[in-house]
Amino acid sequence: MYTELPSKLLHNAVEEMSKLPGVGRKTALRLVLHLLKQPREDVERYGMSFIALRNEVKYCAVCHTISDTETCTLCSNPRRDHTIVCVVETIRDVLSIENTQQYNGVYHVLGGIISPMDGVSPNDLTIDKLIARVASGEIKEVILALSTTMEGETTCFYLYKKLLEFSIPITTIARGVGFGDELEYTDELTLGRSIKNRQPFQL
Amino acid sequence: MYTELPSKLLHNAVEEMSKLPGVGRKTALRLVLHLLKQPREDVERYGMSFIALRNEVKYCAVCHTISDTETCTLCSNPRRDHTIVCVVETIRDVLSIENTQQYNGVYHVLGGIISPMDGVSPNDLTIDKLIARVASGEIKEVILALSTTMEGETTCFYLYKKLLEFSIPITTIARGVGFGDELEYTDELTLGRSIKNRQPFQL
Repeated sequence: MYTELPSKLLHNAVEEMSKLPGVGRKTALRLVLHLLKQPREDVERYGMSFIALRNEVKYCAVCHTISDTETCTLCSNPRRDHTIVCVVETIRDVLSIENTQQYNGVYHVLGGIISPMDGVSPNDLTIDKLIARVASGEIKEVILALSTTMEGETTCFYLYKKLLEFSIPITTIARGVGFGDELEYTDELTLGRSIKNRQPFQL
Repeated sequence: MYTELPSKLLHNAVEEMSKLPGVGRKTALRLVLHLLKQPREDVERYGMSFIALRNEVKYCAVCHTISDTETCTLCSNPRRDHTIVCVVETIRDVLSIENTQQYNGVYHVLGGIISPMDGVSPNDLTIDKLIARVASGEIKEVILALSTTMEGETTCFYLYKKLLEFSIPITTIARGVGFGDELEYTDELTLGRSIKNRQPFQL
């Protein structure tokens, strides 16, 4: 639907907007018409913000999260524990964990997970840099916080084998029934594992 | 949440993205990180498409729909009936009606509806241009296709009074129970009106 827009400029803008994940043509048109109602400076600022980010983006030399400085604010924070590294897929995971305010170590952003189906091999990720960080001898624990998908498990296994020689604790985040979840609606695998990995009751 | 992004550039882009209607901070971050993974040229094209549209947008001199030319493709199409004008709020309504392929007249885009609450007065709309079009004597029917909200009804009434002196038929699109709708779930007002305005049964 809406194949024939009366303006090429409008058509281009809608096409571009609908390339965003989860944005259909109808939503794209609504968003573009919204932008069209804004002052010129606002639309200019909107468009340029992404171009500036894409052209000038830098990644932290240590943990590879997006950063404006050579070393990110997390890696250069002296109050954080630089001997514990939490390995995550993307910066979104860093933000999610930061949000919990339950972790005071540092991170390592892989930039994805090993996925032969999507053409992502270990060399496409920052795995070598992680190994180098651990090899430096300053890391006392590596936490693997990857997705519990097939690809996530594969990546965990790959990292585990690579990190084994350094004989430091390698942990993963706890898996189990989420807080607020009902047992009845928890999938079999999660429930099965959470019974097998039961823990001492704590008040 | 996510108040402290590790990069100012990222922060700006997420802020801009989350200004779009219906886009929260979490979705904005997801969309921005998606853009960040695209080639530079693609992000450039994305950002510039909106700036180009905003800076170069033109409106049809006749019906005020968005157009790249002085007169839009609909108004300059000789195969359409230029004696019937359908009055709508925005270009989205034009596209919705065009989509039905049931209408062969032309349009008039008001650019909004009268809404004192939002500070929209008749002078902010293209009402004068509509009156001028009708006054030219070429229009044989005006169809009012506005929202059935309070503001829409007010605008209809205002237009009706303004157009009365030209003594041409002024119609509105049919209101009633939608096709595929169940009576049980139809609101009282719609159902009440659709019984009052019942029509001869047609096979």
